[in-house]
Amino acid sequence: MESYDLIVKEVILPERGEGFDIAIRDGKIVKIDKGIEKDFSKEVLLGKGKIALPSFANVHTHVPMSLLRGIGADLPLMDWLQKVIWPLEGRFVSPEFVRDGTMLSLLEMIRSGTTLFMDMYFFEEFVAEAVQEAGIRAGLGFGILDFPTKVASTPQEYIERARKFVKDFKGSELIFPVICPHAAYTCSPKTLAMAKELADSEGLLLHIHVAETKSEVEQVKSEYGNTPVKHLESVGFLDSNVLCAHMVWLEEEEIEIVKERDVKIAHCPESNLKLASGVAPVHRYIERGILVGLGTDGAASNDNLDMLEELSTMAKLHKGVSLNAEAINAKTALRVATENGFSIAGIKAGRIEEGYEADLILLNSEVPHLQPLYDPVAQVVYSANSGDIDTVICRGRVIMEKRELKTLDEERILHTAKKWGERIKSSLS
Amino acid sequence: MESYDLIVKEVILPERGEGFDIAIRDGKIVKIDKGIEKDFSKEVLLGKGKIALPSFANVHTHVPMSLLRGIGADLPLMDWLQKVIWPLEGRFVSPEFVRDGTMLSLLEMIRSGTTLFMDMYFFEEFVAEAVQEAGIRAGLGFGILDFPTKVASTPQEYIERARKFVKDFKGSELIFPVICPHAAYTCSPKTLAMAKELADSEGLLLHIHVAETKSEVEQVKSEYGNTPVKHLESVGFLDSNVLCAHMVWLEEEEIEIVKERDVKIAHCPESNLKLASGVAPVHRYIERGILVGLGTDGAASNDNLDMLEELSTMAKLHKGVSLNAEAINAKTALRVATENGFSIAGIKAGRIEEGYEADLILLNSEVPHLQPLYDPVAQVVYSANSGDIDTVICRGRVIMEKRELKTLDEERILHTAKKWGERIKSSLS
Repeated sequence: MESYDLIVKEVILPERGEGFDIAIRDGKIVKIDKGIEKDFSKEVLLGKGKIALPSFANVHTHVPMSLLRGIGADLPLMDWLQKVIWPLEGRFVSPEFVRDGTMLSLLEMIRSGTTLFMDMYFFEEFVAEAVQEAGIRAGLGFGILDFPTKVASTPQEYIERARKFVKDFKGSELIFPVICPHAAYTCSPKTLAMAKELADSEGLLLHIHVAETKSEVEQVKSEYGNTPVKHLESVGFLDSNVLCAHMVWLEEEEIEIVKERDVKIAHCPESNLKLASGVAPVHRYIERGILVGLGTDGAASNDNLDMLEELSTMAKLHKGVSLNAEAINAKTALRVATENGFSIAGIKAGRIEEGYEADLILLNSEVPHLQPLYDPVAQVVYSANSGDIDTVICRGRVIMEKRELKTLDEERILHTAKKWGERIKSSLS
Repeated sequence: MESYDLIVKEVILPERGEGFDIAIRDGKIVKIDKGIEKDFSKEVLLGKGKIALPSFANVHTHVPMSLLRGIGADLPLMDWLQKVIWPLEGRFVSPEFVRDGTMLSLLEMIRSGTTLFMDMYFFEEFVAEAVQEAGIRAGLGFGILDFPTKVASTPQEYIERARKFVKDFKGSELIFPVICPHAAYTCSPKTLAMAKELADSEGLLLHIHVAETKSEVEQVKSEYGNTPVKHLESVGFLDSNVLCAHMVWLEEEEIEIVKERDVKIAHCPESNLKLASGVAPVHRYIERGILVGLGTDGAASNDNLDMLEELSTMAKLHKGVSLNAEAINAKTALRVATENGFSIAGIKAGRIEEGYEADLILLNSEVPHLQPLYDPVAQVVYSANSGDIDTVICRGRVIMEKRELKTLDEERILHTAKKWGERIKSSLS
């Protein structure tokens, strides 16, 4: 008799039907069948009436910023950044801010079914600490800029912080370091080259903001004579280990470059809408075979980290804007939000199949908005909300069960977040 | 000492702050203050940590269709209607289908904070029955068409069904009849004239689909030589008692007509996206001072009846598509989804103010995605989901408390919906 660490009993699997069991060992899905013997498993979860899906991979966010969510609503990106966010960050960002903001975001991400996120911010070592406590996965990078902030004064200093972060966290169980030059308009070609050298020599991903707004495109063009993707190509930055976030404003020729260099894309539809940046032609990227993942961006711009909402918006938005009901179908939307994100991170997860990592969620289908249940994938994509997510499993470990968090102290974290809110609020008036 | 029917204690009111009490008598808000004496109230609810907002008014839907949600996902409107929905309706629609589908939708609407909806379908007397049991408000109309269905053979017969419905339900407490010619492409000018005459003579609203897709515009143009709004104007249909749903494809001149005739608009952004119909330029309608409400459309096209999701999509969508972060701000989005809808229905609700009808919801703010709470309206619009809605009050009566339904038997209704699902599913294979 085989033994397992965990069996999830009698779930609904979209491609197979009702009543299937999922057996997990050493963090991996090892068997899917009906009636798997439960006596040989350490732990058993009952999944009757619940839809099992891969958990979400949020490939672009800034988790500590959840402490600033809701401030400066309804401003365009550059005003919001320059007049509201950067001054607040200048005043409040600290290791404590980063740790406490990350904790708040981890609560939210787990509650909404995310088990992998890719983050870019300052003091990422404190993000890493919180992530290890929560027990989910993260690709983390220390933001690299040309201009001085409280964390560093020169590009070299930022690179050294990034290098130290790599040294400290490379090979961790749940965390992988990523190199994060902020953008082409905030990093000179020399800074980009240093970042790329570090990433390439360590075998790491690069994560960068690209072509988010029209005004960014104009700025890069006037400074370097090229639109952002062409500029990055001309300085030799683009390669298959580069993840570009946003990619809203690309010329046809730039899409070709992206395809040719096998560059990855983090699509952030709700942030791009809310900050009036535009609508990325992401169904065209997908058609070309470019690997696209989904990101929420920071909670201050979205204003949440809810991947289920994000993927639903993505699926609907591109149909409506392109006037093509097949632009992104439900299955594709789910794949973008799950398997594609894990692939970008180099993790074999995002499918409920034998041999895949056991990163999955159970959604309660016994709710009025999911009944009758004809097509679980379409109905989750178009009808569900994150309140339906009942159970979250990361690497075989149950992180949330029946909406109760298993690794984090929700009350304490919310209390701390509120205290930050009071401090920050009093500085606004 | 004044006496009350209900006091909601210590809520967060976005415009006033924390710790306010709302006193209700005879279905109306009669006092808002701190420390209202609770001994003189029949019922008291504790609202600490909860945001009080007006409940939602869903001004365009087809509630019985929830039994068909999820079938034919990712098809464009006309294929979806003609190849999937109409054949299924032809086979299954009956008084029982309408009653059971309505019950399912009522569950969902109450759970997501809606206390008024405006519906167009067949057998609306069975919708009315279910609504009275649920205890929310509805503007209901028997759909009028030129072509025969199982409910009527000629336009005259449809009109007679509508007239009977008016007779039976005019003056009801929670229900008001509405006259519902389906659309300009499905009703001849003569049918429209009969519908208008009935509405005008009874002092009722008219509710009609207009300019939903480009192909509809082409069809009306080729048949009548005019785009839909101009056509409706030319036949004398448009007036201040007309509610036009969708209004995606309007020419500048048509917007002028709408403004001049004081026509009302039901904006259905998610249905329009999902069915690849397009994006209505609704911020321009609002700028002109046209009264716009929000609708989900039927659950089969959206695929849910979640007004909180709908208003969040609306607020983000129009910023992103118009590249203007101020296109529709959070406050406007909330007003469109609440007060504007009630105004269209002629009900003084949609504000938490003395003298307004007591239609309101309490949202739990003690959740990670709503903390810290800086700007309750913006954060509800951009961050909340309907799982946060804790309590729903309609006309002073508590319909849901702590997510428990007070008027409907959820288990029984879900069981019935599943049975329908099995029947319909077996007909698909």
